Amino acid sequence: MRAAIFRRGDIVVDTLPDPKPGPGQVLVKPLACGICGTDLHARLHAPKMVEMSQYVPWRKAMDLSRDVVFGHEYCAEILDFGPECRQILKKGTRVVSVPRLVVDGRIEGIGYSNDNIGAYSERMLLSEQFLIPVPDHVSSALASLTEPLSIGIHAVAKARLEGHEVPLVIGCGPIGLAVIAALKGKGFAPVIASDFSPKRRELALKLGADIVVDPAATSPFKIWEEHARLSPAEIARQPVSLNPAAPRKPAAIFECVGVPGVIQSIFEEAPQAAKVIIVGVCMESDLQKPMFACFKELSVQYVLGCTPDEFAQSLDLIASGKVDAGAMITARIGLDEVAGAFSELASPNRHTKIVVEPWR
Amino acid sequence: MRAAIFRRGDIVVDTLPDPKPGPGQVLVKPLACGICGTDLHARLHAPKMVEMSQYVPWRKAMDLSRDVVFGHEYCAEILDFGPECRQILKKGTRVVSVPRLVVDGRIEGIGYSNDNIGAYSERMLLSEQFLIPVPDHVSSALASLTEPLSIGIHAVAKARLEGHEVPLVIGCGPIGLAVIAALKGKGFAPVIASDFSPKRRELALKLGADIVVDPAATSPFKIWEEHARLSPAEIARQPVSLNPAAPRKPAAIFECVGVPGVIQSIFEEAPQAAKVIIVGVCMESDLQKPMFACFKELSVQYVLGCTPDEFAQSLDLIASGKVDAGAMITARIGLDEVAGAFSELASPNRHTKIVVEPWR
Repeated sequence: MRAAIFRRGDIVVDTLPDPKPGPGQVLVKPLACGICGTDLHARLHAPKMVEMSQYVPWRKAMDLSRDVVFGHEYCAEILDFGPECRQILKKGTRVVSVPRLVVDGRIEGIGYSNDNIGAYSERMLLSEQFLIPVPDHVSSALASLTEPLSIGIHAVAKARLEGHEVPLVIGCGPIGLAVIAALKGKGFAPVIASDFSPKRRELALKLGADIVVDPAATSPFKIWEEHARLSPAEIARQPVSLNPAAPRKPAAIFECVGVPGVIQSIFEEAPQAAKVIIVGVCMESDLQKPMFACFKELSVQYVLGCTPDEFAQSLDLIASGKVDAGAMITARIGLDEVAGAFSELASPNRHTKIVVEPWR
Repeated sequence: MRAAIFRRGDIVVDTLPDPKPGPGQVLVKPLACGICGTDLHARLHAPKMVEMSQYVPWRKAMDLSRDVVFGHEYCAEILDFGPECRQILKKGTRVVSVPRLVVDGRIEGIGYSNDNIGAYSERMLLSEQFLIPVPDHVSSALASLTEPLSIGIHAVAKARLEGHEVPLVIGCGPIGLAVIAALKGKGFAPVIASDFSPKRRELALKLGADIVVDPAATSPFKIWEEHARLSPAEIARQPVSLNPAAPRKPAAIFECVGVPGVIQSIFEEAPQAAKVIIVGVCMESDLQKPMFACFKELSVQYVLGCTPDEFAQSLDLIASGKVDAGAMITARIGLDEVAGAFSELASPNRHTKIVVEPWR
């Protein structure tokens, strides 16, 4: 089979042996797989991911001298079953699943692994227990957005919001857009979103943002302040504070950029007692001034991935048509174009989500 | 009146005019005032505090070309009342209060202010509305620990613990000791605490720690793991996780050091999904690797100060005798010795809390 392989820092197309499904595993044909920002980061910072894996017990470090096949946002077709499968879903069924493979009873990752091939390939293995069938009216490309959208659903769940917060989403790449869709799905309004790219601000509106801000022109925090004002009655009900800030509704700030400097810029501009949810994964060292966060008593929730339940909610949200998730797909390509797409995605005005169709 | 003054980077003793109480204000004689780690940091990093004040609306920046009198952990005696006071407490009453002064209806800080003199002085002003009388059986030096102990009570409250967490306190200076006392007051056990200094580990045991660790000899996180094991029945009840870490009780890690590098070391060693509470105020730039916190889904609550209610709880805890707060007082000095004490406190094996008695 053919695959787009991460080999010594580059993405190259080559042939690999077809994988063989083990107990509880299913052989599938990837139909569509989105390129994730983390794939782009991983190509640039793979040694940093390896270093970090030493400190995260559930992560098996990649061996960078060996091949890795990325691709964890997939929709795929069931081709065959390994032993011990229940086979409730039949061959030919289109499925999505969380990017995990059960190997000898252990849950391992798919996509940043030497052993568990990701979906930039003509064949891969999934675990039967994680498969969710895709409704007929949902295209494979659209279904491949289940994983990135689930990250937004997870981030909003981990924020443990109480309902009266005014959310601000910093960065409208696929993850920011997923957070916007999840906030909209939960009924938050207004949802304020910020991005330097006009194209991405336009997408933010399509995904459910009420107000979009160009941070080159206006501070998104100033716009947030205007929309977080309290009524005189609400101000009168505020408890006396020893650190009296301007009375405002509570802030929920979603960091969806993942590059150095953004967290400190939030520490500087965030209002008192803001909840900050770090959804972007910054793989580089980042200079912060913790004193700013202390004096504002910020809470910072770092998040990653999703639960199986949130993953299923994500497919439901897409299938319901409540959010126009498909708007973020800006290209569909074959395996030979993956390397070029990694470069293309550096330009946020041209592309947002590029979907790989390995069968092309 | 005499005062130990922060003047252009140094601590010098000089005379200043006696302050005059305004409406709702009370003239007091400081009887005892602890030297706080933040005072030490402020002397070294005052320009950084000024820079930060631009981003924290409730903070009035210090003018470093003018005098500042530190000292915000005080017990004082009421000498006289300004206009519009209710005078429920009589002259001669010993009092404590949160370090805030109401000036023309605005709540301002005491101690890091050009206008609101702190307690390294023979006279200062307090707001009548914040005064709490000190019970007769509590010495003034002991009562001056109300403020630092309230920081621990506040940190534990902001951690929003559910009761089954195993706490780990990193750093057993006065703030770490306050957190230990507050955890003990809430019934947490075992409380694990870590400090390089044998003197401070000994104090940690006196304040309520059950297990103390020398991080030069053993990782406190390894000790934590041993005490956070789940029973087989508890393990069986754990939900299936896609990022399966070793099953453990939840972690609450209190950072009570406040110097660069400590937060990243916690990101590296903390267990999955730990709550991290940043109580130490790191005034310098700090290099962090946010990816570590993302992959572990850490939540980081930055805290500062306390509420009036927590301040009152702190005096109650001291007065109850439940914790031996006085054990942390290692010296009592006069105003002329303040400058020397700032240097002395750099050595954690000699001193923990030095109490200034300005009347000496």
